[in-house]
Amino acid sequence: MATQITEAKSGNVTEEMKIIAKLEGESPEKIRDRVAKGKVVIFKNIVRQNLERYTAIGEGLFTKVNVNLGASTDHYDENEELEKVEIANKFGADTIMDLTDGGDIDGMRRKVLAKAKMPVGTVPIYQLYYEMVTKRKYVIDFNEDDLFNVIEKHFKDGVDFVTVHTGVTLDLSKKAAEQKRTAGIVSRGGTILAAWEIYNEKENPLYANFDYLLELAKEYDVVLSLGDALRPGGIDDAHDELHVGELLVNARLAKKAIEKGVQVMIEGPGHMPLDQIEMDIKLEKQLTGGVPYYVLGILPTDIAAGYDHIAGAIGGALAAAYGADMLCYLTPAEHLSLPTPEQVKDGLIAFKIAAHTGDIIKLGEKARKLDTEMSKARASLNWQKMFSLTFDEERARRIYRQYKKFEAGSCTMCGDLCVYLVLPRALNKKKYANQKASTENR
Amino acid sequence: MATQITEAKSGNVTEEMKIIAKLEGESPEKIRDRVAKGKVVIFKNIVRQNLERYTAIGEGLFTKVNVNLGASTDHYDENEELEKVEIANKFGADTIMDLTDGGDIDGMRRKVLAKAKMPVGTVPIYQLYYEMVTKRKYVIDFNEDDLFNVIEKHFKDGVDFVTVHTGVTLDLSKKAAEQKRTAGIVSRGGTILAAWEIYNEKENPLYANFDYLLELAKEYDVVLSLGDALRPGGIDDAHDELHVGELLVNARLAKKAIEKGVQVMIEGPGHMPLDQIEMDIKLEKQLTGGVPYYVLGILPTDIAAGYDHIAGAIGGALAAAYGADMLCYLTPAEHLSLPTPEQVKDGLIAFKIAAHTGDIIKLGEKARKLDTEMSKARASLNWQKMFSLTFDEERARRIYRQYKKFEAGSCTMCGDLCVYLVLPRALNKKKYANQKASTENR
Repeated sequence: MATQITEAKSGNVTEEMKIIAKLEGESPEKIRDRVAKGKVVIFKNIVRQNLERYTAIGEGLFTKVNVNLGASTDHYDENEELEKVEIANKFGADTIMDLTDGGDIDGMRRKVLAKAKMPVGTVPIYQLYYEMVTKRKYVIDFNEDDLFNVIEKHFKDGVDFVTVHTGVTLDLSKKAAEQKRTAGIVSRGGTILAAWEIYNEKENPLYANFDYLLELAKEYDVVLSLGDALRPGGIDDAHDELHVGELLVNARLAKKAIEKGVQVMIEGPGHMPLDQIEMDIKLEKQLTGGVPYYVLGILPTDIAAGYDHIAGAIGGALAAAYGADMLCYLTPAEHLSLPTPEQVKDGLIAFKIAAHTGDIIKLGEKARKLDTEMSKARASLNWQKMFSLTFDEERARRIYRQYKKFEAGSCTMCGDLCVYLVLPRALNKKKYANQKASTENR
Repeated sequence: MATQITEAKSGNVTEEMKIIAKLEGESPEKIRDRVAKGKVVIFKNIVRQNLERYTAIGEGLFTKVNVNLGASTDHYDENEELEKVEIANKFGADTIMDLTDGGDIDGMRRKVLAKAKMPVGTVPIYQLYYEMVTKRKYVIDFNEDDLFNVIEKHFKDGVDFVTVHTGVTLDLSKKAAEQKRTAGIVSRGGTILAAWEIYNEKENPLYANFDYLLELAKEYDVVLSLGDALRPGGIDDAHDELHVGELLVNARLAKKAIEKGVQVMIEGPGHMPLDQIEMDIKLEKQLTGGVPYYVLGILPTDIAAGYDHIAGAIGGALAAAYGADMLCYLTPAEHLSLPTPEQVKDGLIAFKIAAHTGDIIKLGEKARKLDTEMSKARASLNWQKMFSLTFDEERARRIYRQYKKFEAGSCTMCGDLCVYLVLPRALNKKKYANQKASTENR
């Protein structure tokens, strides 16, 4: 099967590359060359029919934001999740991941795929877990075929990317089980696999049969997102042997994928102190030769529960500035609960801000021109323009009007003491006085 | 008059130094030595009676957060502002600035001083502006005595620190009036002074009579906060001639203040791209010899109106990590309106997160131990402990319960697939199976 990579390697510019080139303000040839090297991936399962908003990530492209949604075994409400898809559509999420791990998982995934305007990803192993539970089996009573079957089902449904925890090998799983980490293992899918491996004394099927996984992915041109099962779940655990050891495995596998014509990206943490973010991004880029990097957060403190979207935006902005290609958002509900639709919006916008803040550094003028426009609009008190440049125009208008009933003049923060009114008036008054004096002296 | 600095220079440890030492986990002697060098300031007007929470900023101390509040000419509601003081008290603001620039300014300031548990600062020139307006005079029709009189009135009321725009000299004001900045001048007080100087062809009274200002400040041991009238108001304007030129003047004046026994800090921007923050902090520290640095935000993008607390927390965290000593918060209403009490809370918590995130880098273990505690609480599903470690316990509890009615077990995000349940169970099952096998083999 032809994939974006095999086409690129043959020197062909695909329709998808042209669309991405236009969206990103790059030449189609540059996009092609980066795809050929695995430095850019384009999310588009060949069977996905209704993709309206194309998304690519990687070298030279805008930093993207992924929205996680999906029901859990504790709470399943289809309408609520579809409302979250609407919010993702409205406020410009670049990708969605449906992480449903309970209830009608197939139904939810298909409905999300039908409603989402952008690429959709999943973590197929969650479904396997739930199947075991509903069959009254123990959670890890599945075999290798079960795992690949569920992955293939997602591919057939048109999912554009999937998280596969390829890097958590039997050796690493055993080390992890004996570890003295502060926060332990915090990846849902990774935990299931690690438990399976240890319990069965067998190698990770995704690692042992990586070639077969590549064949499947190639058939649909699905992007493999190599998951970080052993990511740090607290800042104390950042860049320990488990974390870096798994990255080493995934980096090796990623190169193999590109060689075989399969698009691939690497998932990163998670929790780490601010001063490790630069190193983290550079390490991934160095080890992989520039494979797109998709990070969760990054969360530079563990104590912001209730406001993890803000803590995550701090780390995410820095990650983007240093070269992370896509940020997985966090909502205020992270570490506490499934998010409500409103919390999904809060998380998405916080991370859109983070991505843009990073892009000002990573891409320069291309991103920064919006800031220049905003500052000019401000200095001329052009409110309509200001509102149009914000991430949520309705909210900006609402706040502007909270103590004021019309949209013009200064805002209520400084009232008449608005800097854009005081100085020009003084300068005009001075000019007038000077003119008057010079007239009188004639 | 004896001030914290003169006492420190004489080798004396004051009561205030002892309190600060305890709060910061430092020895009183270290605090004294830093105060003597002007590297730490303690906010305490000698006439302030009801100070419950002492605050100091500077070398080796936790990063602090200031909350701005106050009514404007457009909207004056005393109860609302006092509600904001309550929020600042409740959620741990380290200082408050009352920026009221309209209505009963004296009354508001005195009520804020009476209700605030922490040090209070003001910008006296705002009151002068309003007096001109109410006397139907032109905004800059004041003389030097008027300016010093209003400053002294604030000192007498017990204000612990004041912003004085000492650095915007006549020369810089003229340059500013002719500049081609994207965002112009964005300091309220600075604009009034610059307009006054240009209109009257006279030097900045605060600069020309700095020695007199020092005498006044010394009498009350008020901390002078040397304002940045020419700070960048958009990222395009960061570190231009005006911005750095004013810092040069303020740095020189700060050294003079310390020499004369007057506590002093420097105010910093404002808007700048992420990659200028490190340089900005280092420049201030280098030029001043370590005078405490009090930054606004920092805002690393201009387009986040409606969410400037989040954009500001991104820059603020980085600033704190690099050594900024106090962050002036921003609320979601920045650039749009006076904030509501709820928005004050949003801003305060965002900046508490930023300060802590930076302190993990700046102070290490001293700050980071909270994160370790949180991760341990998480790994043991100890929810009560987790809630107690957050910035807003009520909110964390509310979110945890939004889809769940009791506080125990996993949260609804992963439900039964909670990582802290799956792996231990699998390991136990394995252990049990092994035991069983070994029993059967006996």
